Amino acid sequence: MISTATQALGRRAQAKLDALAAISADDDRINRLYLTPEYRRAANLVAGWMADIGLEVHEDALASVHGRLAPTLAGGSNRRLLIASHIDTVIDAGMYDGCLGVVAGLIAVDEIRKRGLRLPFGIEVVAFGDEEGVRFPTTLSSSTALAGAFDAASLDKPGIDGVSLRQALTAFGKDPGEIAAAAADPASLIGYVEVHIEQGPVLEHEGEALGVVTSIAGQSRYRITVSGEAGHAGTVPMGLRHDAMMATAEICGLIEAEARAGNAAHGLVATVGTLQVKPGAVNVIPAEVTFTLDIRAASDAPRLAAIETIRAGIDGICARRGTRWRWEKFLDQPTTPMNDGLQALLTEAVTGLGGKGRRLASGAGHDAMALAPVTDTAMLFVRSRGGISHNPAEFSSVDDMGLAIEALIRFIEGLARREIARAG
Amino acid sequence: MISTATQALGRRAQAKLDALAAISADDDRINRLYLTPEYRRAANLVAGWMADIGLEVHEDALASVHGRLAPTLAGGSNRRLLIASHIDTVIDAGMYDGCLGVVAGLIAVDEIRKRGLRLPFGIEVVAFGDEEGVRFPTTLSSSTALAGAFDAASLDKPGIDGVSLRQALTAFGKDPGEIAAAAADPASLIGYVEVHIEQGPVLEHEGEALGVVTSIAGQSRYRITVSGEAGHAGTVPMGLRHDAMMATAEICGLIEAEARAGNAAHGLVATVGTLQVKPGAVNVIPAEVTFTLDIRAASDAPRLAAIETIRAGIDGICARRGTRWRWEKFLDQPTTPMNDGLQALLTEAVTGLGGKGRRLASGAGHDAMALAPVTDTAMLFVRSRGGISHNPAEFSSVDDMGLAIEALIRFIEGLARREIARAG
Repeated sequence: MISTATQALGRRAQAKLDALAAISADDDRINRLYLTPEYRRAANLVAGWMADIGLEVHEDALASVHGRLAPTLAGGSNRRLLIASHIDTVIDAGMYDGCLGVVAGLIAVDEIRKRGLRLPFGIEVVAFGDEEGVRFPTTLSSSTALAGAFDAASLDKPGIDGVSLRQALTAFGKDPGEIAAAAADPASLIGYVEVHIEQGPVLEHEGEALGVVTSIAGQSRYRITVSGEAGHAGTVPMGLRHDAMMATAEICGLIEAEARAGNAAHGLVATVGTLQVKPGAVNVIPAEVTFTLDIRAASDAPRLAAIETIRAGIDGICARRGTRWRWEKFLDQPTTPMNDGLQALLTEAVTGLGGKGRRLASGAGHDAMALAPVTDTAMLFVRSRGGISHNPAEFSSVDDMGLAIEALIRFIEGLARREIARAG
Repeated sequence: MISTATQALGRRAQAKLDALAAISADDDRINRLYLTPEYRRAANLVAGWMADIGLEVHEDALASVHGRLAPTLAGGSNRRLLIASHIDTVIDAGMYDGCLGVVAGLIAVDEIRKRGLRLPFGIEVVAFGDEEGVRFPTTLSSSTALAGAFDAASLDKPGIDGVSLRQALTAFGKDPGEIAAAAADPASLIGYVEVHIEQGPVLEHEGEALGVVTSIAGQSRYRITVSGEAGHAGTVPMGLRHDAMMATAEICGLIEAEARAGNAAHGLVATVGTLQVKPGAVNVIPAEVTFTLDIRAASDAPRLAAIETIRAGIDGICARRGTRWRWEKFLDQPTTPMNDGLQALLTEAVTGLGGKGRRLASGAGHDAMALAPVTDTAMLFVRSRGGISHNPAEFSSVDDMGLAIEALIRFIEGLARREIARAG
């Protein structure tokens, strides 16, 4: 049974999420893209909450909102823990993705102060603005800027409304020349932690409220074209066909078998999400099929090995069938491992609350990826009903959110004990 | 080696095919739809050829051109053999499909007269106009009218240019009220024979110039929808997916295996020619896939048995994967068997010319289907290079066409011997 106090934390989170969800470009759905008027209002709301709980607030050149709490233990370091996530959304979004991480950070910090817990490090809660990558052809630009790795080339590419990131920042009252100054000094950071909904069904399937992220899965994406020979559906015997669709079906079977074989051990998943058939007539044997492959795993080696197995398999299938094939890689993103020490502290917090401390890879990307190169990084996952995300049906319960905030508080306490022990 | 005389027959056919190919709506491709000005010119050209060789010419209410030769043997029956095919084309057609059957009939009849062969039956060469079914939402309307089975409901449906068959016939100078009178009295027919290019690769693959058609394959067409559950390509483990694309890939494998198993014995072929994936994003597990199945066989029972096996297989695959499915039949055309006696006479003619008399089913539909219910029907196939048809690359050689015409002459002689024997 969850305690009344923990439930109360979840209710506070829900109230804040409701307030953020009400800020949208549309009346009937959540639509809050980066650097829009809605984003301005959401950033202001978050800044107000930060001020309410006594944080020192500032907004950086990328319009990320920062709220800083100084170390409360005499003699503590001048380093700080980042607790962050994002407040932009996809179009027709749910209310939990991103926002929960910011809200959980604020409530945890407020609770730490209220409980009189003294910390040997500072805390900085950050609300990032460009995680979903919907408006501009960039992604994670705001968290990447904090990590000092902002790509200036992305400033001048037009977004979905024809406006570039540079133009939108300027219109938002920001100076793109100040982006470099938004970078945190790595030496000033003790770590980064992000609470996020799972966006997948694993925790629900296993009856766990919380999970500890082991890594953010690397991913590769390919566009694959299989070419055969068109022919009359009635006149070409099966043995004389070079049917691009049937070759592709066999390739799909190979891809699925490979992903299933590596799923338990390596979190390997593979998806054929798009497929086009040419010429595409009911009575013509397909001459060409083009499809995409999205493949991810909890670490790089099994993903790369699976890609190699699939490549060889496609070669064999096409050789046997007299079809040709080619592929084009259009995404290759390495795995981002989470820090072992912080994972251990999160696990201790979760098990202390009665959870199993389920470790799992994140199949989706997060702001934590941007910070991992400069500081120890960790993520806490919260159970998502039906695994549904990027959809109005996205849901995490008040109880689960309360447990997540309590776990975050215990994690911070554990980190404080570790730092004090190290200093001692 | 093919004889000079037989080659000469092929050259005569080629010259006539060249003349027909020059009659097109377009300068750069063959485009001769039913009841167009081009069709008028082609019908006139054929009528002229018929008159040249002494046939009695008339055009019926569907604008089919008929050229009749009376029995030349004293005391013969008043029945006649129909030799027919069509002179309409698809858009961007080849020059052999349809036209070869008409031209071969004309040259065979001319040759029979020149050789002084006397027949105990008449011959009627017919050029049909509506076999390809491109302009109007009908098919085989002209041969169906000759068989007395014209569907009056098809008269008023708009064609691709918005003009109905009734309007087009009237504009062409025909009286739709006369269609019933275009029907032949079945008692007046001794049979129907059609020479046609194979439109498939079997004869070429086996090194045979000619083949004897056993049946026109029945065919069924289905639209099949497999429904699963959309999900994030990175966050849903393989075991928790209900991936409509992967289910469909497995179904394609089942369809192909079933068709391969029945191909040699029953001419079973199956094609998945169209396929659409929803939502169709690289990083979203497909929720729904819709595809078509075209399945044909040389006789009905194996086709229907294969459909039943496939149905049960899809059921099993979907039950195991937690996906749902439905199908909708949108075509169900029974097999049209060719007449055994006429097949035997064609085979004798082909083997007499050094061929193997390869029997094969026709996977495509032909005018012969329309006549089969009213008279004994047969078809002779001519080797198609690469199996290509409905395409400018369609090709049958002068030698093969010469052999086809010689085989047709021998078939007619054989039929004459049979009729004389029966009468005696």
